[in-house]
Amino acid sequence: MTEIQVSLFQLDNYGPWTTSPQPKPEPDLQTLQARVYADLAEGVGSHGGYLFYGRFDNLLGVTNGLDTTAHRTLQEQIADGYPVTVSVGIGTGETPAAATTAASSRLQATGSAQAPGRRNVLTGETTATGPVQVAHFDVVGVTEKYTDTENAYRTQMRMQETVFELSSYLYDALGAMTHFVGGDNAIAVSRPVETAAYENALSHIAETTGLGLQVGIGEGSTAVAAGQVAKRSLEAARHEGKRIVGPRPQAAGD
Amino acid sequence: MTEIQVSLFQLDNYGPWTTSPQPKPEPDLQTLQARVYADLAEGVGSHGGYLFYGRFDNLLGVTNGLDTTAHRTLQEQIADGYPVTVSVGIGTGETPAAATTAASSRLQATGSAQAPGRRNVLTGETTATGPVQVAHFDVVGVTEKYTDTENAYRTQMRMQETVFELSSYLYDALGAMTHFVGGDNAIAVSRPVETAAYENALSHIAETTGLGLQVGIGEGSTAVAAGQVAKRSLEAARHEGKRIVGPRPQAAGD
Amino acid sequence: MTEIQVSLFQLDNYGPWTTSPQPKPEPDLQTLQARVYADLAEGVGSHGGYLFYGRFDNLLGVTNGLDTTAHRTLQEQIADGYPVTVSVGIGTGETPAAATTAASSRLQATGSAQAPGRRNVLTGETTATGPVQVAHFDVVGVTEKYTDTENAYRTQMRMQETVFELSSYLYDALGAMTHFVGGDNAIAVSRPVETAAYENALSHIAETTGLGLQVGIGEGSTAVAAGQVAKRSLEAARHEGKRIVGPRPQAAGD
Amino acid sequence: MTEIQVSLFQLDNYGPWTTSPQPKPEPDLQTLQARVYADLAEGVGSHGGYLFYGRFDNLLGVTNGLDTTAHRTLQEQIADGYPVTVSVGIGTGETPAAATTAASSRLQATGSAQAPGRRNVLTGETTATGPVQVAHFDVVGVTEKYTDTENAYRTQMRMQETVFELSSYLYDALGAMTHFVGGDNAIAVSRPVETAAYENALSHIAETTGLGLQVGIGEGSTAVAAGQVAKRSLEAARHEGKRIVGPRPQAAGD
Repeated sequence: MTEIQVSLFQLDNYGPWTTSPQPKPEPDLQTLQARVYADLAEGVGSHGGYLFYGRFDNLLGVTNGLDTTAHRTLQEQIADGYPVTVSVGIGTGETPAAATTAASSRLQATGSAQAPGRRNVLTGETTATGPVQVAHFDVVGVTEKYTDTENAYRTQMRMQETVFELSSYLYDALGAMTHFVGGDNAIAVSRPVETAAYENALSHIAETTGLGLQVGIGEGSTAVAAGQVAKRSLEAARHEGKRIVGPRPQAAGD
Repeated sequence: MTEIQVSLFQLDNYGPWTTSPQPKPEPDLQTLQARVYADLAEGVGSHGGYLFYGRFDNLLGVTNGLDTTAHRTLQEQIADGYPVTVSVGIGTGETPAAATTAASSRLQATGSAQAPGRRNVLTGETTATGPVQVAHFDVVGVTEKYTDTENAYRTQMRMQETVFELSSYLYDALGAMTHFVGGDNAIAVSRPVETAAYENALSHIAETTGLGLQVGIGEGSTAVAAGQVAKRSLEAARHEGKRIVGPRPQAAGD
Repeated sequence: MTEIQVSLFQLDNYGPWTTSPQPKPEPDLQTLQARVYADLAEGVGSHGGYLFYGRFDNLLGVTNGLDTTAHRTLQEQIADGYPVTVSVGIGTGETPAAATTAASSRLQATGSAQAPGRRNVLTGETTATGPVQVAHFDVVGVTEKYTDTENAYRTQMRMQETVFELSSYLYDALGAMTHFVGGDNAIAVSRPVETAAYENALSHIAETTGLGLQVGIGEGSTAVAAGQVAKRSLEAARHEGKRIVGPRPQAAGD
Repeated sequence: MTEIQVSLFQLDNYGPWTTSPQPKPEPDLQTLQARVYADLAEGVGSHGGYLFYGRFDNLLGVTNGLDTTAHRTLQEQIADGYPVTVSVGIGTGETPAAATTAASSRLQATGSAQAPGRRNVLTGETTATGPVQVAHFDVVGVTEKYTDTENAYRTQMRMQETVFELSSYLYDALGAMTHFVGGDNAIAVSRPVETAAYENALSHIAETTGLGLQVGIGEGSTAVAAGQVAKRSLEAARHEGKRIVGPRPQAAGD
């Protein structure tokens, strides 16, 4: 049973490229990285997947619904549109953690990330059967408490700390993969699990960072399908003053 | 004496937009955010500034060298090219921390980040006189130790933890602003300080996370000018097996 | 029998938007138009279609292979990523001309291009069965004769005149759709026709403009499939000094 | 007296790249070309210049206001962000025609567009003193007469024919440079000339193509400055039912 499919997109021999023949200006690198990410996120998303910015040169995505051809097309678009190429490892597993281990191992087996001869590799299998669960978190009252009142850098550090704590907790508890996605939002992807796991996560974050989170949960055959339910659940949580809504649509009188 | 200029680019009323009238698919939001960032980073960079991805909807940059007109032009380009607008607060101070506080306060004084009527605001002053110091960090042996051997998600979490520790340490010690910029790289911006501060930071990171960092340091009238020296210093550190090189160009026989 | 599928992507109420509340700077408009086109061309291309820049706010593509869902996804990506929306009419027919008439009529029936209330419309049918024929033209010796020796504006005008003559001729003769695609290249899409039609076209261009063209021809179930054969045919024409190669792979001894 | 500055941006050895080692898919090339253009147009525009899409791999712009450093920065951004590089020739003259000849000759003198060793060349001088005149044309009643009623491809061909006729006429009469900029819009750049020249051009177009054009004219120290006046003039023409407005702001009672 392999529920989750994870793809690792890794820029080929990227570090050396950034300093050859001379170090390239940082704004050029940031611009390039963001555009490569935008194209890949859009392409993965058009097939129902979520791709995260990760380490910028190593991007992890939940790609249930993307076959090998879809990955290959994206890979060629990057090769033809940018000065860099990308190799891809695809793995499946019962959890994102297991799937990521598989994707990482497969790609590592094809050669080092800095091997000049390893370019445009595509390896792995696309046999995950889902379903996927998405938990979409945000911070209660972030605008009033932080954005509109605090030093913007301190607010940013606070979000980083919170997402790091949340990532660590959910990885250990569920083998989930959690990413910051902007503002005060974080998205965790897992196989379908009980709501109690998220209740515990919220308690853990409140204790370690003092921040109050709320979460909407959804399930679906792809990350986008699950994520859209999660987003609606989170909207419901906001409006109803609940901390957790989901993973299934609210029944009448619920 | 105001050495450092910091600009806070904040998407106007962005959270509500992402869920109105229905929650927008996450890949569309990630694509949009990355493209807005890419354009702003490129535009800021063409005047010698560094812009970081920050909270994606709240972007902090070191903008010594950018006058009000340059900020205004960027703001109009976003307004005409994307479905969102951006407001900008500019602050100056002896440290990035002080400049960020000034930028944040000024922007906050114009209205809430989620006030529907606050759009395309530009506030602040551009009087910083520099110089800027940039410290460019990376992890010793990251490819062999992590990228080529570890689960990619765990490597990513390790980088997040490291950069968070580094950010916290340098903020407290120097009022510096530190950002992850991809791979195993982090960039700290500060006013010119003694090398000892970075020696202490490296020791702190080794103790708290077990990772070995190296750093190249540079100074200049803009972030790009300082950053290019820092990058060359880091290259020298790599080749010479040193942990710290800079902040000034290597003299002959050094 | 409907061989060809044509999609018309039309920016909604775009003209008024460009001048409201004040005329937007032309560079902002050119940047926006080019990025919307790039995204749509990439998305259409990932399903095997060709999209051309056309009138920039009215884009025509050959979309055999794209179903309604693929069009809808692209439409939503534009709506979420740009300050404009796009409506789409899809038509099928025995020729690109007939398919374009169907696509245009269907879209026009939903309301004016400048009706404020008409946004994100998608209309039409996706029942074309192919095959598609692509003829890829270029100018013999363009670099030596023009690019390296002439005033660049005059060379550009010469290309415009040539492509206009070629478009007119092939539209009248074959109901084909011909677009300039950069440099000295033009691409005509049609149903499969005899090579003689292109021989006549080359003669016509030589007589009216004095330019010598060569052409590679290919067939396939999608524009990209046909176009890749056409490109290889054109390469063969260049190397063998022939004016026409294709539409089928060269047999041994051919 | 050199009023006009023209820059020719030419992709280096681009044709061979598109077919090496195999012909690249056309959608990838169109996407790349449009994104390179978008970046250059945005960068040129941020300094007040107009850049046109031209032959896609040979782009002409009116760059009064851009010094050598601004050109160099753009050139480096393309080199770092795309798989292609661009060389630039800058020329000045009393007319766009003369300036284009100078820009073309200077660039050609550095080597062939397809010389593998010619990369990232920047040549020329930036001494134009302006002012620039911009005439912004569109078609009277295009939406009702064409977009909402005609086959979209035929409308597009009609626009191509019209702009070609207009370009030829204004080049011969004024040494002006005229480009299609989307929809039913064309922009001509020249040194300041009498309005009579445009009256003659409108008559010529009406006779040769049957289309009725209207035009707004503006002057300024840069293309953007002149172009914004021209756009407002064209708005005035539309509202007042005039065929020509400008080149100067309407006086009261005018």
